[in-house]
Order: sequence, then structure tokens, then C-alpha cells
Amino acid sequence: MTSFSFDKLVIFGVGLIGGSLARALRERAGAARVGRIVGVSRSRASAERARELGVVDEVAALDDDGELRAALAGADLVLLAAPVAQTLPLLRRIAQFLGTDTIVTDAGSTKSDVVAAARAALAERAAQFVPGHPIAGRESSGVEAALPDLYVGRNVVLCPLPENRAQDVARIEALWRVTGAIVSTMTHEQHDRVFASVSHLPHLLSFALVECILNAPDAALKFSFAAGGFRDFTRIAASSPEMWRDVCLANRHALVDELDCYVTVLARLRAAIVAEDGAALEAVFARSREARTQWQERGGQAAAPAGLAPK
Amino acid sequence: MTSFSFDKLVIFGVGLIGGSLARALRERAGAARVGRIVGVSRSRASAERARELGVVDEVAALDDDGELRAALAGADLVLLAAPVAQTLPLLRRIAQFLGTDTIVTDAGSTKSDVVAAARAALAERAAQFVPGHPIAGRESSGVEAALPDLYVGRNVVLCPLPENRAQDVARIEALWRVTGAIVSTMTHEQHDRVFASVSHLPHLLSFALVECILNAPDAALKFSFAAGGFRDFTRIAASSPEMWRDVCLANRHALVDELDCYVTVLARLRAAIVAEDGAALEAVFARSREARTQWQERGGQAAAPAGLAPK
Repeated sequence: MTSFSFDKLVIFGVGLIGGSLARALRERAGAARVGRIVGVSRSRASAERARELGVVDEVAALDDDGELRAALAGADLVLLAAPVAQTLPLLRRIAQFLGTDTIVTDAGSTKSDVVAAARAALAERAAQFVPGHPIAGRESSGVEAALPDLYVGRNVVLCPLPENRAQDVARIEALWRVTGAIVSTMTHEQHDRVFASVSHLPHLLSFALVECILNAPDAALKFSFAAGGFRDFTRIAASSPEMWRDVCLANRHALVDELDCYVTVLARLRAAIVAEDGAALEAVFARSREARTQWQERGGQAAAPAGLAPK
Repeated sequence: MTSFSFDKLVIFGVGLIGGSLARALRERAGAARVGRIVGVSRSRASAERARELGVVDEVAALDDDGELRAALAGADLVLLAAPVAQTLPLLRRIAQFLGTDTIVTDAGSTKSDVVAAARAALAERAAQFVPGHPIAGRESSGVEAALPDLYVGRNVVLCPLPENRAQDVARIEALWRVTGAIVSTMTHEQHDRVFASVSHLPHLLSFALVECILNAPDAALKFSFAAGGFRDFTRIAASSPEMWRDVCLANRHALVDELDCYVTVLARLRAAIVAEDGAALEAVFARSREARTQWQERGGQAAAPAGLAPK
């Protein structure tokens, strides 16, 4: 395992994700390996809250050229942990102040759009940008919810660019490994297909079920008899509409592919129901149950398959 | 509230549902109002287990004419609590031994097929049959899992037939109310639409997502990064394949209608994604989130709407 240390880490957006990384590094890396942590936000006030809580050492406002230049001067690492739709404007904003030795990474839940943003904003300096995605629960938000243990046992996916330097990628891997995360690498296309399938599509389907019931003339009656199955299935329909709008648009190509695949499966099941083909239905249900049960028994996530094993 | 008592209750299928009713009546109705409870099952051995546990007083085997006649002689009430696909053969089997003063009810999770079975097996004596559906969790099964409090605060839906006597319906309502359940009535068509929408469709959709991932060439990779959203959405995909095959077939007309409505919503969302219409997506997501949040805040089930209020 690579030893990991830094002199200066700059975090853009000190909320649950960025704040938890800062707290994890302080508590888990050992004081000798942790330098200054600077929090940058749109307004100085919200970064100040992170300093009051001891999550960051210094703060800077994004719209102040002097503060931003000072924040980025001599930075080893930059983490973008603002909403993913802000990636392009953020990268455009910091490009002019970015040192040639600074490695930039992000925490966005889609990656192809982030890679496109990095190439657009940084051009040939996109080589300094290592795209990343920590997969961590987000029921709560804000720096007050930040936890030093948020990433323990969680997956972090890196999607290195061909032009990234191997040592920079290794450094970002080491950064996340200090937090207790399991780090994997894949291409940004693979990443977006995987998360379209196991995360973005289920959210869309869950929102769609509630919408479907709302559109029914007997909606009130239906909601009044909804029980445990509905509760579990629609828990994610209480997620942030803004965030999921952005995710659906950012990952629209992979999401539409997965949705089309899903609708094909529904058409097959519909045909089996209409034909009263109980054997076909039972075969699908039994296969699904077995796969779901095995997934659960592996602790809710499988070992990464060969070739993508955590390093 | 109607006072409730009985001299003899016969339960066909003494598992979680039938066993919990028996235990609830004993513990909640007061000894003076509870007569004998007879458990009938396919084999005498499995009913014997219920007697050993003190859930029923007597047992009878379904395939023994003498035992079945004795069990049904002088019965006030009969509850069918076997898998819903067995309703028709069960009713055919007991029809010849059924007294003219005995009220029969059931616990099946679909109702139009049960009504058709009652008319086919009982002909004009279907007037003695009051269709019912207690909505209770079924993660565990068998008489060992039976609980006296299983029905407290749970919905029980009755779907009376036009030819039922009002006093018989009132007696079945009183039976369930003793268990602590909230009793509502609706037509069997309404029932099947409601549960197609809030229960049967979500199960189908959940099985379908796992099937869709299993069909993908990168299935292993996808499962290995599935997290909390996938977990909640697919919890019901670990349900019994046989039971859900039977439910999908028994309620196929309402289920196909709901599925078609759902696929229409998916097509609308797909169009918004392709058109990059963030406002349309956000509007649907926000409306769904609000409805889901309100549902949760009402304790997971709304008050029954006017005209369907629990009596």
C-alpha cells in the first residue's frame, strides 16, 4: 500500500462528501502525514461553518480571485465535491490558478460528463485530472453530517484518463484508501453503464411508480393501502429531485440504454402474464430471487470481478 | 362495535396467517367469547404441529371425509388461509360438508379470482362466502411464526358479494376487528386494481430489474457496485417465486393494465431525458417525492378516503 501524505489539500464544496474526507484524513492518516486543508465554497460563510467545526483549517470564497489564487498556490491535491452539474464552471474557474504539480480529482456520481468537462475546461492539462466517485450514502447532507468513518468499507471508483500519470492515479488511490474505502478502477464508460443500471435506473423506476399512482383516478385509495413492498420499492423516490434530474441528464446515454433493456424485460414478462405462462414467470422470479439473495449474502456487494479487483 | 363470539371456527391452512388469527382471537377476544378452533391441513401431521403449539384445539385431515365432515359440522365460521391458488379445489372439497349457517371467508391476496372460484364451487351458496384480504407481512411463514399481534394496526379489506347477508359481513368485520386490524370494504374489482398498483406491480418491477442486470454481459461488475438504492428497490425480489407467479396470474387483468400505465410513464420520462428536458424530469421527481414523503408522514398508509372509511 502506498504511503500517503500531503502538505495542502483544497476541497471545493465542504458538505457531507468533502467534509467526511477531511475528517477521515485527520483521524486516520496520522498528524505527520496531514498538512493544511482548505475549504472553498461559493460564499465564505458556508466554508466558515466547516472551519468552526474543525473540519478545515482555512477557507476561501470562490468568487474572490485573491483568495482563490492563495488557496490553490502550492496545493498537492484538489477535490471537487460540489454538485456534479457545477463541475464544468468550477474547473473553468480554477484553471487559471492551478499549479502544474497539483492533482485534481472529483466525487461526482457520473463520469463521462465530468471527463468531457475536464477536457473542455483544462484542455491538455486534463492530464492532471483523475476522475473519481466515492459511493457513500447521502440521506443527510451538509458539513454537520460529515463523518470520519463515512467511507469505511465503501466503494470508491476511479476512472483514470489515458493521459493521467500513473503516480498521480496511485496518489488518489492512496488518498481514498486512507479513509477505509475499497478502491477500484474502470473506464468512465464502464462506470456510467454500471451506475445507470444499479443506481440511476432504480431511482427513475421508483419515481415513475409514484407518478403512475398519482395519475390514477383512484390514487388516494391506492396510497391508503400501500404497505411494505411499496415502502421499500419507493424509498429512493424521496431523493432530491434536483440531484436526480442532473444525474439523469448527465448520464442520459447509458441510462436510456438501460431503460430500453428494462422495458424489453417488462414486455417479455407482460407476454408471459397474458399467455398465462406460469412456468416462464416462475423461472424469471426464481432466477432473480437467487441472484438477489446471493448478493445479500455477499454482504450487499460482490467481490470485484477479475481484472477489476481492488488494488 | 359489534360484539363478537363463536362456538366453532375452522381454519384451512394453519400457517402464519391462519395461526395468527387463532392466537389473536384467544388472546384478545376473552375466553367467554372464543369456542373451539379446528385446524385443517392437507396432512394431519402439519395441523398436529399447530395443536402442539396450542394454536388450535383440534385437527382434521383434508383428505379424510369423516374428519372433514366432523370438522365442519356446527361451524360458525370457516377461514381459508391456504395459498390462493388452492381456493377453488378447497371450496369444491368442502362444499358437500358445509352447513347452511356457516359463514366462509378467505385471506387470499387477490379477489376477483377468489370470487370466481366461490361462484364456481358453491353456486347459489356463494352467498355464504365473504371474500377477505388481511394485509400482513410475510417475511416468515409457518405456524411457528404466528403472532397474536400480527394484525394490530394492519389493513384488512373485505369485498362483500351483492348476495352476502349484511349480518354475515358484519360478523367477519367483527372477527378481524378483534385482532386489532383496520377493516375496510370495497368491490373485488377495486381491490384488485389497488393491489395490482401498490403491491403486485412493484414486485414484478423489482424482479425485472434483477433479471435485466442478469442478462447484461457485465452482470458481475454491476452487482459488485450495487449499493443502497438497489438494496431497497430489490428487497421484494427475494420474495417467493411460486407465490408471485400465482398472484401475477390470478390478478393478470388488473396487473397488465397497471403495467401498461407504468410503461407509458417510462416512455414519457425517456422522452424528457432524450430531449434533455430537465424541467419536466424535475417536475415528476418533485411530485413523486412529495407524495412519497406525505405517505411516509401519515405513518405509511393514508386514512381511507371518504366512502371507504373503516367502519
